[in-house]
Amino acid sequence: MPNPGTIHGVLLSDTFDLKTFYSLDLTGRADDVRLYNPDEVTDPEAIRFAVCWLPGPDAFAAYPNLEMAMSVGAGVDDLLGHPGLGKDVAICRVRDPYQADLMAGYAVHEVLHVERDFGTYQGHKAGETWDPLPLRPPHHRKVAVLGHGSMGAAVTKALAALGFSVTVACRRSPSDPVEGVTYRTGDEAITQAVTGAETVVNVLPLTPQTHGILDKVLFDKLVPGAWLVQIGRGEHLNVDDFVAALDSGQLSGASLDVFAEEPLPPGHAFWRDPRLRITPHIASDTTPHAVSEQALQSARELLAGKPLTFAVDRDQGY
Amino acid sequence: MPNPGTIHGVLLSDTFDLKTFYSLDLTGRADDVRLYNPDEVTDPEAIRFAVCWLPGPDAFAAYPNLEMAMSVGAGVDDLLGHPGLGKDVAICRVRDPYQADLMAGYAVHEVLHVERDFGTYQGHKAGETWDPLPLRPPHHRKVAVLGHGSMGAAVTKALAALGFSVTVACRRSPSDPVEGVTYRTGDEAITQAVTGAETVVNVLPLTPQTHGILDKVLFDKLVPGAWLVQIGRGEHLNVDDFVAALDSGQLSGASLDVFAEEPLPPGHAFWRDPRLRITPHIASDTTPHAVSEQALQSARELLAGKPLTFAVDRDQGY
Repeated sequence: MPNPGTIHGVLLSDTFDLKTFYSLDLTGRADDVRLYNPDEVTDPEAIRFAVCWLPGPDAFAAYPNLEMAMSVGAGVDDLLGHPGLGKDVAICRVRDPYQADLMAGYAVHEVLHVERDFGTYQGHKAGETWDPLPLRPPHHRKVAVLGHGSMGAAVTKALAALGFSVTVACRRSPSDPVEGVTYRTGDEAITQAVTGAETVVNVLPLTPQTHGILDKVLFDKLVPGAWLVQIGRGEHLNVDDFVAALDSGQLSGASLDVFAEEPLPPGHAFWRDPRLRITPHIASDTTPHAVSEQALQSARELLAGKPLTFAVDRDQGY
Repeated sequence: MPNPGTIHGVLLSDTFDLKTFYSLDLTGRADDVRLYNPDEVTDPEAIRFAVCWLPGPDAFAAYPNLEMAMSVGAGVDDLLGHPGLGKDVAICRVRDPYQADLMAGYAVHEVLHVERDFGTYQGHKAGETWDPLPLRPPHHRKVAVLGHGSMGAAVTKALAALGFSVTVACRRSPSDPVEGVTYRTGDEAITQAVTGAETVVNVLPLTPQTHGILDKVLFDKLVPGAWLVQIGRGEHLNVDDFVAALDSGQLSGASLDVFAEEPLPPGHAFWRDPRLRITPHIASDTTPHAVSEQALQSARELLAGKPLTFAVDRDQGY
């Protein structure tokens, strides 16, 4: 391993094969940066950085000369609070400008999928049936967007561009409102946004105030047969109220991308429920491209003794 | 029937139940306008207007006092050339401002459906499998849009808003180009736009020059495994070349909404091909809402002796 022009790092995750998932096999791509799985490391003292996702409690113990730990996700809570990581180790996170585009794409796909009957047409194809269903102008579909951070803003903009009638519940009035969109603020913002809506897209942050907010009170404000697109956090959903709303027909179905327990365990009733569309927390994420590029850049900055572009402020926590 | 404050019309189509499909049962909605199916007409001489879609050769023969014929579609070729329709009968067409929104929604849904693996996740749901696949930044997907009329422009704008890398083949450089979109004009515009593209969205008009333009020469310019979204006209597609491109893997699949023969007949090989997504010409259309509102408005204008807002210039042909 020793070679002054080369820097060595290790991939640390208890749950993911990081090398495969994030395209972190750098062989042939970078002669100066080497990344190993733990079982490939022959000289632990030569390891100067780690690329991590949920590293186990003893994950760092074998590497006494670690100078940097990078999270492949946007959150660094696990690294900041990790007992095995010294305060002198720099912490970096991936910053991916495309996360909001991805989130908007997921939301738009699900709203269109329901509004335009694509699921029905898939069944018609299997039956070799040509049966065009009536079309509505998109502005007849009232969509409520809950949350207006960078994700909510991108979702709002994309839905409005396709002609949907969008009402947003937000903390503050936006400085750059989208023409034709209604913004609701204040204590009643969420209630006002969902009243009479046919679709709810949840992109709220998870706080004590929003925990379990997708409940009977909220579902009852929607028009009967409404659709939920759940891309916030699993803990936003009151599961009992949700199942009751499906059974009563108040909700005709939902697109669920996040769950209180992830992975959603095999055998969970959601998997077999034909009213639900389920995806494995992929509405948005840092992309493998951003992860591998930024891991490479960070390693080279460390090798050159330069400031770390993707470093996190330990006191601010982000 | 006779009542001076009421106007009577008839629905004429050989292929569609217009009353059901376009919400043209006006009972309870309009006391002054009555619309009948032919078998409901008791006094043919009282019929002053017709709402039509592909009326048969003798469709108008029973109604000697017709003053207006309205097409439920944007095209009026069938009415202008109809031998049973006198030159003194005004011809109207529906003008629906939402057609472009609908077209953009269809294209965006299909591009996202493929890019984001929604079909794969549907299979994973059936198998109760949690298996997140890698995400790419949307700008890594190169999408070629062929055609830049009102439909093509709306498709382009929506795809660009979601972060895709869009190149458009157009007749003239647009006066209001979308930032980040590449526009190609001139004889080589289509070739340039499709070269290296992963997705082609066809919204060209059908002309002698574009007949059969989706052929081997075009498919070979794409990256292997590309996807076609075919929302132009069925006659754009060279079916033999298309099937060969699917079989060689040059195309991984296609979303087909238009066909040389519509309805696509039962038993056609396309229905059973798992590489194809098929919809019954619903990417865009005049909406029932626009049709019923504009039929009502036109009938009332006729009743009041006012100029017809939706009248077509017979000489221009649109």
